[in-house]
Amino acid sequence: MAHIDLGVDETTFPGISGPMQYRPETAKPLNELAEVLLRAPHSLPAGERELIAAYVSGLNECRFCCASHSAFAAVQLDDGMALVDQVRADLDAAPISTKLRSLLRIAAAVQVGGRSVTTDMVKAAQAEGATDLEIHDTVLIAAAFCMYNRYVDGLGTLAPDNQDAYLETAHRIVEFGYGSTADPG
Amino acid sequence: MAHIDLGVDETTFPGISGPMQYRPETAKPLNELAEVLLRAPHSLPAGERELIAAYVSGLNECRFCCASHSAFAAVQLDDGMALVDQVRADLDAAPISTKLRSLLRIAAAVQVGGRSVTTDMVKAAQAEGATDLEIHDTVLIAAAFCMYNRYVDGLGTLAPDNQDAYLETAHRIVEFGYGSTADPG
Repeated sequence: MAHIDLGVDETTFPGISGPMQYRPETAKPLNELAEVLLRAPHSLPAGERELIAAYVSGLNECRFCCASHSAFAAVQLDDGMALVDQVRADLDAAPISTKLRSLLRIAAAVQVGGRSVTTDMVKAAQAEGATDLEIHDTVLIAAAFCMYNRYVDGLGTLAPDNQDAYLETAHRIVEFGYGSTADPG
Repeated sequence: MAHIDLGVDETTFPGISGPMQYRPETAKPLNELAEVLLRAPHSLPAGERELIAAYVSGLNECRFCCASHSAFAAVQLDDGMALVDQVRADLDAAPISTKLRSLLRIAAAVQVGGRSVTTDMVKAAQAEGATDLEIHDTVLIAAAFCMYNRYVDGLGTLAPDNQDAYLETAHRIVEFGYGSTADPG
Protein backbone atom coordinates (compact mmCIF):
# COMPACT_ATOMS: atom_id res chain seq x y z
CA MET A 1 0.00 0.00 0.00
CA ALA A 2 1.29 3.46 -0.86
CA HIS A 3 2.87 5.59 1.88
CA ILE A 4 0.12 8.23 1.54
CA ASP A 5 -3.61 7.93 0.83
CA LEU A 6 -3.86 8.36 -2.94
CA GLY A 7 -7.64 8.17 -2.86
CA VAL A 8 -7.78 5.32 -5.38
CA ASP A 9 -8.02 1.54 -5.40
CA GLU A 10 -4.38 0.64 -6.08
CA THR A 11 -5.29 -2.64 -7.76
CA THR A 12 -7.12 -0.56 -10.39
CA PHE A 13 -4.52 2.23 -10.39
CA PRO A 14 -1.15 0.52 -9.71
CA GLY A 15 2.30 2.09 -9.94
CA ILE A 16 2.49 5.61 -11.32
CA SER A 17 -1.21 5.71 -12.21
CA GLY A 18 -2.22 6.16 -8.54
CA PRO A 19 -0.12 9.32 -7.93
CA MET A 20 -1.19 10.60 -11.36
CA GLN A 21 -4.84 10.31 -10.33
CA TYR A 22 -4.01 11.96 -7.02
CA ARG A 23 -2.15 14.94 -8.54
CA PRO A 24 -3.34 15.69 -12.11
CA GLU A 25 -1.44 19.01 -12.14
CA THR A 26 1.87 17.15 -12.12
CA ALA A 27 0.56 14.18 -14.15
CA LYS A 28 0.06 16.49 -17.14
CA PRO A 29 3.73 17.49 -17.72
CA LEU A 30 4.90 14.00 -16.67
CA ASN A 31 2.75 12.43 -19.38
CA GLU A 32 3.69 15.08 -21.95
CA LEU A 33 7.37 14.43 -21.34
CA ALA A 34 6.90 10.67 -21.80
CA GLU A 35 4.88 11.28 -24.95
CA VAL A 36 7.57 13.47 -26.58
CA LEU A 37 10.45 11.24 -25.54
CA LEU A 38 8.93 7.81 -26.17
CA ARG A 39 6.16 8.11 -28.76
CA ALA A 40 6.58 11.25 -30.92
CA PRO A 41 8.00 10.74 -34.45
CA HIS A 42 11.74 10.15 -34.16
CA SER A 43 14.78 8.67 -35.91
CA LEU A 44 14.98 6.14 -33.04
CA PRO A 45 12.07 3.67 -33.25
CA ALA A 46 9.62 3.86 -30.33
CA GLY A 47 10.51 0.28 -29.36
CA GLU A 48 14.18 1.26 -28.95
CA ARG A 49 13.29 4.32 -26.87
CA GLU A 50 11.08 2.16 -24.64
CA LEU A 51 13.99 -0.29 -24.37
CA ILE A 52 16.17 2.52 -22.99
CA ALA A 53 13.41 3.30 -20.46
CA ALA A 54 13.07 -0.37 -19.47
CA TYR A 55 16.84 -0.82 -19.19
CA VAL A 56 17.28 2.19 -16.89
CA SER A 57 14.24 1.18 -14.81
CA GLY A 58 15.84 -2.24 -14.37
CA LEU A 59 19.10 -0.66 -13.21
CA ASN A 60 17.05 1.38 -10.71
CA GLU A 61 15.32 -1.84 -9.65
CA CYS A 62 11.91 -0.24 -10.11
CA ARG A 63 9.70 -3.28 -10.61
CA PHE A 64 6.61 -1.43 -11.86
CA CYS A 65 8.38 0.79 -14.41
CA CYS A 66 10.68 -1.99 -15.58
CA ALA A 67 7.78 -4.40 -16.19
CA SER A 68 5.72 -1.64 -17.82
CA HIS A 69 8.36 -0.35 -20.22
CA SER A 70 9.69 -3.84 -20.95
CA ALA A 71 6.17 -4.68 -22.14
CA PHE A 72 5.88 -1.38 -24.04
CA ALA A 73 9.22 -2.13 -25.76
CA ALA A 74 8.38 -5.78 -26.42
CA VAL A 75 5.15 -5.04 -28.30
CA GLN A 76 6.99 -2.58 -30.55
CA LEU A 77 10.18 -4.58 -31.25
CA ASP A 78 10.38 -7.40 -33.81
CA ASP A 79 12.11 -9.70 -31.33
CA GLY A 80 9.74 -8.85 -28.48
CA MET A 81 10.37 -9.68 -24.85
CA ALA A 82 13.20 -12.09 -25.69
CA LEU A 83 15.28 -9.14 -26.91
CA VAL A 84 14.35 -6.96 -23.93
CA ASP A 85 15.43 -9.77 -21.59
CA GLN A 86 18.73 -10.24 -23.46
CA VAL A 87 19.56 -6.54 -23.26
CA ARG A 88 18.74 -6.41 -19.56
CA ALA A 89 20.74 -9.58 -18.84
CA ASP A 90 23.87 -8.85 -20.91
CA LEU A 91 24.08 -5.60 -22.87
CA ASP A 92 27.45 -6.48 -24.44
CA ALA A 93 26.16 -9.74 -25.94
CA ALA A 94 22.60 -8.75 -26.89
CA PRO A 95 21.83 -8.89 -30.66
CA ILE A 96 21.22 -5.16 -31.19
CA SER A 97 22.88 -2.57 -33.42
CA THR A 98 26.21 -1.13 -32.30
CA LYS A 99 24.54 2.29 -32.31
CA LEU A 100 21.80 1.24 -29.90
CA ARG A 101 24.36 -0.50 -27.69
CA SER A 102 26.42 2.70 -27.50
CA LEU A 103 23.30 4.70 -26.56
CA LEU A 104 22.37 2.18 -23.86
CA ARG A 105 25.89 2.56 -22.43
CA ILE A 106 25.30 6.32 -22.16
CA ALA A 107 21.93 5.63 -20.50
CA ALA A 108 23.61 3.33 -17.96
CA ALA A 109 26.12 6.08 -17.12
CA VAL A 110 23.30 8.62 -16.64
CA GLN A 111 21.63 6.19 -14.22
CA VAL A 112 24.77 6.26 -12.05
CA GLY A 113 24.98 10.05 -12.28
CA GLY A 114 25.24 12.77 -14.91
CA ARG A 115 28.96 13.24 -14.49
CA SER A 116 29.52 9.55 -15.29
CA VAL A 117 28.86 10.27 -18.97
CA THR A 118 32.23 10.74 -20.68
CA THR A 119 33.26 12.45 -23.91
CA ASP A 120 34.51 9.06 -25.11
CA MET A 121 31.07 7.46 -24.63
CA VAL A 122 29.48 10.25 -26.64
CA LYS A 123 32.15 10.05 -29.38
CA ALA A 124 31.67 6.28 -29.56
CA ALA A 125 27.93 6.73 -30.12
CA GLN A 126 28.58 9.37 -32.77
CA ALA A 127 31.07 7.02 -34.49
CA GLU A 128 28.31 4.39 -34.64
CA GLY A 129 26.04 6.88 -36.39
CA ALA A 130 24.07 8.33 -33.47
CA THR A 131 22.91 11.89 -34.09
CA ASP A 132 23.19 14.65 -31.51
CA LEU A 133 19.41 14.56 -31.08
CA GLU A 134 19.50 10.81 -30.43
CA ILE A 135 22.22 11.34 -27.82
CA HIS A 136 20.31 14.23 -26.24
CA ASP A 137 17.13 12.19 -26.04
CA THR A 138 18.94 9.13 -24.70
CA VAL A 139 20.38 11.24 -21.87
CA LEU A 140 16.97 12.76 -21.13
CA ILE A 141 15.08 9.42 -21.31
CA ALA A 142 17.58 7.91 -18.87
CA ALA A 143 17.40 10.97 -16.60
CA ALA A 144 13.60 11.03 -16.76
CA PHE A 145 13.38 7.39 -15.69
CA CYS A 146 15.61 8.19 -12.73
CA MET A 147 12.70 10.50 -11.83
CA TYR A 148 9.73 8.26 -12.70
CA ASN A 149 11.34 5.28 -10.91
CA ARG A 150 11.95 7.32 -7.73
CA TYR A 151 8.43 8.77 -7.89
CA VAL A 152 6.82 5.33 -8.13
CA ASP A 153 8.95 3.67 -5.45
CA GLY A 154 9.39 6.73 -3.22
CA LEU A 155 5.62 6.71 -2.69
CA GLY A 156 5.61 2.95 -2.14
CA THR A 157 3.05 2.23 -4.87
CA LEU A 158 1.82 -1.21 -5.86
CA ALA A 159 3.53 -3.22 -8.64
CA PRO A 160 1.23 -6.01 -9.90
CA ASP A 161 2.73 -9.50 -10.11
CA ASN A 162 0.59 -10.46 -13.09
CA GLN A 163 2.61 -9.74 -16.25
CA ASP A 164 -0.55 -9.74 -18.39
CA ALA A 165 -1.58 -6.46 -16.74
CA TYR A 166 1.51 -4.74 -18.15
CA LEU A 167 0.90 -6.12 -21.63
CA GLU A 168 -2.69 -4.90 -21.60
CA THR A 169 -1.46 -1.42 -20.71
CA ALA A 170 1.23 -1.70 -23.41
CA HIS A 171 -1.33 -2.17 -26.16
CA ARG A 172 -3.33 0.81 -24.90
CA ILE A 173 -0.26 3.09 -24.65
CA VAL A 174 0.90 2.12 -28.15
CA GLU A 175 -2.53 2.88 -29.57
CA PHE A 176 -3.60 5.91 -27.55
CA GLY A 177 -0.45 7.35 -25.93
CA TYR A 178 0.63 8.49 -22.49
CA GLY A 179 -1.98 10.34 -20.51
CA SER A 180 -4.71 9.28 -22.93
CA THR A 181 -6.49 7.27 -20.27
CA ALA A 182 -7.02 7.28 -16.54
CA ASP A 183 -4.26 4.69 -16.25
CA PRO A 184 -1.12 5.80 -18.11
CA GLY A 185 1.01 2.89 -16.87
CA MET B 1 31.74 22.58 -23.49
CA ALA B 2 28.68 20.38 -23.83
CA HIS B 3 29.10 16.84 -25.22
CA ILE B 4 26.91 17.67 -28.22
CA ASP B 5 26.51 20.84 -30.28
CA LEU B 6 23.58 22.65 -28.68
CA GLY B 7 23.67 25.43 -31.27
CA VAL B 8 23.96 28.16 -28.64
CA ASP B 9 26.65 30.22 -26.95
CA GLU B 10 26.93 28.38 -23.63
CA THR B 11 28.09 31.48 -21.76
CA THR B 12 24.72 33.05 -22.66
CA PHE B 13 22.78 29.78 -22.21
CA PRO B 14 24.58 27.89 -19.42
CA GLY B 15 23.38 24.73 -17.66
CA ILE B 16 19.90 23.53 -18.50
CA SER B 17 19.12 26.57 -20.65
CA GLY B 18 21.31 25.29 -23.52
CA PRO B 19 19.52 21.91 -23.91
CA MET B 20 16.19 23.72 -23.46
CA GLN B 21 17.02 25.99 -26.40
CA TYR B 22 18.14 22.95 -28.39
CA ARG B 23 15.00 20.88 -27.73
CA PRO B 24 11.95 23.10 -27.03
CA GLU B 25 9.59 20.09 -27.31
CA THR B 26 11.04 18.63 -24.11
CA ALA B 27 11.72 22.04 -22.51
CA LYS B 28 7.97 22.71 -22.39
CA PRO B 29 6.94 19.86 -20.02
CA LEU B 30 10.21 20.23 -18.07
CA ASN B 31 9.40 23.88 -17.36
CA GLU B 32 5.74 23.13 -16.65
CA LEU B 33 6.73 20.50 -14.09
CA ALA B 34 9.11 22.94 -12.34
CA GLU B 35 6.42 25.63 -12.38
CA VAL B 36 3.79 23.40 -10.71
CA LEU B 37 6.20 21.93 -8.17
CA LEU B 38 8.17 25.03 -7.22
CA ARG B 39 6.08 28.13 -7.93
CA ALA B 40 2.35 27.32 -8.02
CA PRO B 41 0.28 28.27 -4.92
CA HIS B 42 1.01 25.73 -2.18
CA SER B 43 0.94 25.14 1.57
CA LEU B 44 4.76 24.85 1.43
CA PRO B 45 6.31 28.28 0.71
CA ALA B 46 8.15 28.52 -2.63
CA GLY B 47 11.42 29.18 -0.79
CA GLU B 48 11.09 25.86 1.08
CA ARG B 49 10.30 23.98 -2.13
CA GLU B 50 13.35 25.55 -3.80
CA LEU B 51 15.38 24.54 -0.74
CA ILE B 52 14.38 20.90 -1.31
CA ALA B 53 15.51 21.27 -4.95
CA ALA B 54 18.82 22.86 -3.92
CA TYR B 55 19.44 20.23 -1.25
CA VAL B 56 18.88 17.30 -3.62
CA SER B 57 20.97 18.98 -6.34
CA GLY B 58 23.79 19.30 -3.80
CA LEU B 59 23.53 15.61 -2.92
CA ASN B 60 23.75 14.85 -6.65
CA GLU B 61 26.77 17.18 -6.86
CA CYS B 62 25.19 19.07 -9.76
CA ARG B 63 26.99 22.41 -9.55
CA PHE B 64 24.71 24.31 -11.93
CA CYS B 65 21.39 23.18 -10.43
CA CYS B 66 22.62 23.49 -6.86
CA ALA B 67 23.87 27.06 -7.37
CA SER B 68 20.69 27.96 -9.29
CA HIS B 69 18.16 26.59 -6.82
CA SER B 70 20.20 27.73 -3.79
CA ALA B 71 19.89 31.26 -5.21
CA PHE B 72 16.17 30.76 -6.01
CA ALA B 73 15.63 29.55 -2.42
CA ALA B 74 17.75 32.30 -0.88
CA VAL B 75 15.83 35.17 -2.48
CA GLN B 76 12.55 33.70 -1.19
CA LEU B 77 13.58 32.76 2.37
CA ASP B 78 13.85 35.24 5.22
CA ASP B 79 17.27 33.95 6.23
CA GLY B 80 18.56 33.84 2.66
CA MET B 81 21.70 32.03 1.57
CA ALA B 82 22.93 31.59 5.16
CA LEU B 83 20.02 29.23 5.81
CA VAL B 84 20.51 27.37 2.53
CA ASP B 85 24.17 26.84 3.40
CA GLN B 86 23.29 25.62 6.91
CA VAL B 87 20.79 23.08 5.59
CA ARG B 88 23.24 21.81 2.99
CA ALA B 89 26.08 21.60 5.54
CA ASP B 90 24.19 19.99 8.44
CA LEU B 91 20.51 19.17 8.06
CA ASP B 92 20.16 17.94 11.65
CA ALA B 93 21.41 21.23 13.14
CA ALA B 94 19.94 23.75 10.69
CA PRO B 95 17.41 26.21 12.22
CA ILE B 96 14.34 25.06 10.28
CA SER B 97 10.98 23.67 11.35
CA THR B 98 10.81 20.02 12.37
CA LYS B 99 8.29 19.53 9.56
CA LEU B 100 10.64 20.86 6.88
CA ARG B 101 13.49 18.79 8.33
CA SER B 102 11.38 15.63 8.10
CA LEU B 103 10.52 16.44 4.47
CA LEU B 104 14.18 17.04 3.62
CA ARG B 105 14.99 13.62 5.11
CA ILE B 106 12.46 12.06 2.74
CA ALA B 107 14.02 14.01 -0.14
CA ALA B 108 17.47 12.70 0.79
CA ALA B 109 16.15 9.14 0.75
CA VAL B 110 14.59 9.66 -2.68
CA GLN B 111 17.97 10.88 -3.95
CA VAL B 112 19.51 7.55 -2.95
CA GLY B 113 16.63 5.61 -4.53
CA GLY B 114 12.85 5.39 -4.29
CA ARG B 115 12.90 2.26 -2.16
CA SER B 116 15.01 4.07 0.46
CA VAL B 117 11.92 5.97 1.60
CA THR B 118 10.48 4.16 4.62
CA THR B 119 7.05 4.13 6.22
CA ASP B 120 8.69 5.50 9.38
CA MET B 121 10.07 8.54 7.50
CA VAL B 122 6.62 9.28 6.11
CA LYS B 123 4.95 8.78 9.50
CA ALA B 124 7.52 11.09 11.11
CA ALA B 125 6.70 13.82 8.58
CA GLN B 126 2.97 13.34 9.17
CA ALA B 127 3.55 13.55 12.94
CA GLU B 128 5.27 16.91 12.39
CA GLY B 129 2.20 18.15 10.53
CA ALA B 130 3.14 17.44 6.91
CA THR B 131 0.10 16.81 4.70
CA ASP B 132 -0.08 13.98 2.18
CA LEU B 133 0.17 16.53 -0.63
CA GLU B 134 3.32 18.02 0.91
CA ILE B 135 4.83 14.53 1.18
CA HIS B 136 3.79 13.70 -2.40
CA ASP B 137 5.32 16.90 -3.73
CA THR B 138 8.51 16.47 -1.71
CA VAL B 139 8.99 13.01 -3.23
CA LEU B 140 8.33 14.34 -6.73
CA ILE B 141 10.55 17.44 -6.32
CA ALA B 142 13.40 15.20 -5.14
CA ALA B 143 12.77 12.72 -7.96
CA ALA B 144 12.51 15.51 -10.55
CA PHE B 145 15.87 16.94 -9.49
CA CYS B 146 17.41 13.50 -9.89
CA MET B 147 16.30 14.01 -13.51
CA TYR B 148 17.23 17.68 -14.03
CA ASN B 149 20.66 17.13 -12.41
CA ARG B 150 21.43 14.14 -14.67
CA TYR B 151 20.18 16.01 -17.72
CA VAL B 152 22.44 19.00 -17.05
CA ASP B 153 25.55 16.99 -16.19
CA GLY B 154 24.91 14.06 -18.55
CA LEU B 155 25.19 16.52 -21.44
CA GLY B 156 28.29 18.14 -19.90
CA THR B 157 26.83 21.66 -19.88
CA LEU B 158 28.59 24.74 -18.54
CA ALA B 159 28.15 25.83 -14.89
CA PRO B 160 29.21 29.51 -14.47
CA ASP B 161 31.63 30.27 -11.61
CA ASN B 162 30.18 33.75 -11.05
CA GLN B 163 27.51 33.47 -8.34
CA ASP B 164 25.94 36.78 -9.41
CA ALA B 165 24.70 35.10 -12.59
CA TYR B 166 22.57 32.70 -10.53
CA LEU B 167 21.13 35.53 -8.43
CA GLU B 168 20.17 37.48 -11.55
CA THR B 169 18.33 34.42 -12.86
CA ALA B 170 16.73 33.95 -9.43
CA HIS B 171 15.08 37.36 -9.52
CA ARG B 172 13.77 36.71 -13.03
CA ILE B 173 12.39 33.25 -12.12
CA VAL B 174 10.68 34.60 -8.99
CA GLU B 175 9.06 37.37 -11.01
CA PHE B 176 8.25 35.65 -14.29
CA GLY B 177 8.43 31.89 -13.66
CA TYR B 178 10.03 28.87 -15.27
CA GLY B 179 9.99 28.87 -19.03
CA SER B 180 9.03 32.54 -19.14
CA THR B 181 12.29 33.49 -20.81
CA ALA B 182 14.88 32.00 -23.12
CA ASP B 183 16.99 31.23 -20.05
CA PRO B 184 14.96 29.31 -17.46
CA GLY B 185 17.95 28.60 -15.19
